[in-house]
Amino acid sequence: MTYSRAPLYEALSENIKGDPISFHVPGHKYGKVFSNNAKSSFHSILELDGTEIGRLDDLHAPEGVIKESQDLASSYFESDETFFLVNGSTAGNLAMVLSVCKPGEKIIIQRNCHKSVMNGIELAGARPIFLSPLYEEETKRYSKVSRDSVKRALEEHPDSKGVLLTYPDYFGRAYELNEIADLVHAHKLPLLIDEAHGVHFHLDGSFPTSAMAAGADVVVQSAHKMAPAMTMASYLHVKGDRVNINLIRHYLQVVQSSSPSYPLMASLDLARAFMEGWGEAERLTLFSFIEEVRKAFGSFTSTWRLLPIGKYDDPLKLTLEVDEVSGFELSRFLEEVQVVPELATSHQVLLILGLEPSFDRKELERRLDSVDSRLKNTSNNATIREVNISFPEIQTLEMGYADMQRMKDVQMGWSQAVGCIAAEAIIPYPPGIPLLMKGERISKIHYEHVLSLIDQGARFQNVNIEQGLRVFKGECL
Amino acid sequence: MTYSRAPLYEALSENIKGDPISFHVPGHKYGKVFSNNAKSSFHSILELDGTEIGRLDDLHAPEGVIKESQDLASSYFESDETFFLVNGSTAGNLAMVLSVCKPGEKIIIQRNCHKSVMNGIELAGARPIFLSPLYEEETKRYSKVSRDSVKRALEEHPDSKGVLLTYPDYFGRAYELNEIADLVHAHKLPLLIDEAHGVHFHLDGSFPTSAMAAGADVVVQSAHKMAPAMTMASYLHVKGDRVNINLIRHYLQVVQSSSPSYPLMASLDLARAFMEGWGEAERLTLFSFIEEVRKAFGSFTSTWRLLPIGKYDDPLKLTLEVDEVSGFELSRFLEEVQVVPELATSHQVLLILGLEPSFDRKELERRLDSVDSRLKNTSNNATIREVNISFPEIQTLEMGYADMQRMKDVQMGWSQAVGCIAAEAIIPYPPGIPLLMKGERISKIHYEHVLSLIDQGARFQNVNIEQGLRVFKGECL
Ligand SMILES: Cc1ncc(COP(=O)(O)O)c(C=O)c1O
Ligand SMILES: Cc1ncc(COP(=O)(O)O)c(C=O)c1O
Repeated sequence: MTYSRAPLYEALSENIKGDPISFHVPGHKYGKVFSNNAKSSFHSILELDGTEIGRLDDLHAPEGVIKESQDLASSYFESDETFFLVNGSTAGNLAMVLSVCKPGEKIIIQRNCHKSVMNGIELAGARPIFLSPLYEEETKRYSKVSRDSVKRALEEHPDSKGVLLTYPDYFGRAYELNEIADLVHAHKLPLLIDEAHGVHFHLDGSFPTSAMAAGADVVVQSAHKMAPAMTMASYLHVKGDRVNINLIRHYLQVVQSSSPSYPLMASLDLARAFMEGWGEAERLTLFSFIEEVRKAFGSFTSTWRLLPIGKYDDPLKLTLEVDEVSGFELSRFLEEVQVVPELATSHQVLLILGLEPSFDRKELERRLDSVDSRLKNTSNNATIREVNISFPEIQTLEMGYADMQRMKDVQMGWSQAVGCIAAEAIIPYPPGIPLLMKGERISKIHYEHVLSLIDQGARFQNVNIEQGLRVFKGECL
Repeated sequence: MTYSRAPLYEALSENIKGDPISFHVPGHKYGKVFSNNAKSSFHSILELDGTEIGRLDDLHAPEGVIKESQDLASSYFESDETFFLVNGSTAGNLAMVLSVCKPGEKIIIQRNCHKSVMNGIELAGARPIFLSPLYEEETKRYSKVSRDSVKRALEEHPDSKGVLLTYPDYFGRAYELNEIADLVHAHKLPLLIDEAHGVHFHLDGSFPTSAMAAGADVVVQSAHKMAPAMTMASYLHVKGDRVNINLIRHYLQVVQSSSPSYPLMASLDLARAFMEGWGEAERLTLFSFIEEVRKAFGSFTSTWRLLPIGKYDDPLKLTLEVDEVSGFELSRFLEEVQVVPELATSHQVLLILGLEPSFDRKELERRLDSVDSRLKNTSNNATIREVNISFPEIQTLEMGYADMQRMKDVQMGWSQAVGCIAAEAIIPYPPGIPLLMKGERISKIHYEHVLSLIDQGARFQNVNIEQGLRVFKGECL
């Protein structure tokens, strides 16, 4: 791999070489004060866990080495300006929404957006226009929204302030974003893209087109998900002048700690350097590894189906489909032999590879063999009830967030909750996509879907979901 | 030191022992995929950089090892419930404010609060009632607010939803918080405390009383500042039922990444274990170290004054006061010999010690000697203009945040900006305390204070502060 500079990481390494006497935070003093039993794991990183002193610059007002390092990222990712995020793509999505909509203003989003988008809209007091994603028979999932829905929404809500879409979806599925970009730009609006799962699309032609290349105005990426950065390390890229970059800067310091973590920032610097140094040799190695891994999984045809990779699919994602057991169960079996998936749904299990080979194929095969034998001896106890919700193509909420903020809410059992307006979202996790949104009226179908997911072992962020949920007082039918 | 359990750290160490094949995020695959030149620094921590799989629980819906680890913290800190924060005390302050005030509602705060409190109020669309802190001749600083101001504010604004104060201040100065707690509780309101700089007050009688012990309802602490946790790792403690803990939980997942960093969380677990194991032997070692360090600084009486430690002062903080040069200059001289202070103001330099000795006293003395000689050969080129702003004891803003959000703003040069309403705060950093608030009318004195700070080398979060600032259009006198 070609060596690319990583100035922030280098400055942090340099900083400790002078044997500084730290009379500043953090309290671990570059690791000298720390729990003894954990020193060996933490020591080398704590040496880099500095703060805004001397040459280490300031994330919230960068003019030195952080600026330099962000600028390198900006030229690699072909943005006009790139911001390092230390609070995940969550921070990026919040800032993106807050910078575009004021209270009462409209923003067009997809119903299956990440909860941080909804949270941003709620904080902004904005009005979401929801687009329903299409159900794909082929993958049995709700994924992208159609160009036509976007077009209709723009026509029906010409006073919208922007369009925010997820690209690619959690399973790595991309689509023709450039067409949508043209459409949105024709309305003189910014296209904001949550590309949490697509940072590596910048690598080269072996991956789907990146959102930036497709014409997005703002792009948020979890560098930790698909590139080698520490968890919570993300990027926000801005291009063009359809958004107010000063407002984005403002909201980023609102939603992120005033003491951002240097190891996280350094890992963003290093992840960019890694990607910049990634070339033809690495590509060949990776793609032959992908093939090996797919072969390993593909050989158990009677137990699961390995979905093919289409033109718009991220080759780093593998999806297994099952009938005999649920996806949740398959996931548990795999975990038991230390083959640890990303995500399970009722029928599918999602597996994610890194940008370099990270395990031995033979070892994987041994572990899969044992899962396969166990599955063959497992009787099907997964009675999976299909619950298909159909969402309206374009939907608004019955009340705005500003109104909701003024209302009282009560905890309500499920039997009475049907017909009421939800005061909290229902979000199975992962993937953290709202099934029922705050402000949405609860139908019998919602309720059945929740029950079915509970049955199948999905997890929810709501405490005591079995017992009901919070609804707005006095708003039930 | 007594060994105390750290279940989250232990679970993370355990997790990697089974040699898992990671088909999940993060993309570095426990460090196997990473920039080669940085592997040695990052490797041991990346092994702990996991995600919400198997036994590793979920910060946003804890029911396993994160819950256990938070519960241990809760009993150590004597709260009813303790939350781990991965986005600094910033996240805690935001959640505290958002959970207490709805749009248009009042909250009593001190003018010199951390900017995250103001940001929380702005996001909430709430109405701040500002209390002016008292100027202390003794320390030449604005520090605490008086009990009387709190009393008056509660009487004049009985519809307030809570009182939020900083305790201790950045320089480690505490005060009689229990009296204020009684007063606030007599009005049936919650007392919310930003104890970012006081996590170690829980240790034992050698430090000022902790906010929790003084009767606060919610307390936010940067564990990274004074305890040995990684930067961005903080706690939020709740006690009693004057606040809605479900709303706090809700807002914490709003303002924090949906992929919280496990190393940060583990460091919170370990910091609690460290403090729990800290006993009499450690206390003796620390206090004799403090004395040595104070002696080292105290011996240069002709160059700076070391302020004494009063009854309400944190002994881990040392303040140097200078006349011949500015605090900013002294700080630069110290940094040049790798004695690195926390903070400089025009006349003072703040130094912070950790909870264990972390350097050699003789080495410190050698370095200070060389600073001393250099200072003696430096002519006084710091013409420090004293700019004392006097703030009204209790102050509200001319317009609410909800109104401000609807207004347009323009960039304005300083000569015209006086008399206008600021559309952005002016925050010298550190300590990140607003000198001029968004929504406040700009006076000539504000302007002079800014000029003087620029002259003296302070840093600001505002870009191009010399050229002016953003003000609300059409609101100038
Ligand atoms: C589509 C999408 N957007 C945003 C996020 C939030 O990113 P982060 O976890 O980095 O805060 C996620 C995380 O799961 C996601 O899947
Ligand atoms: C008084 C005070 N409160 C809150 C904060 C914010 O804490 P953090 O930097 O951990 O986000 C700070 C940080 O400087 C502070 O000084």
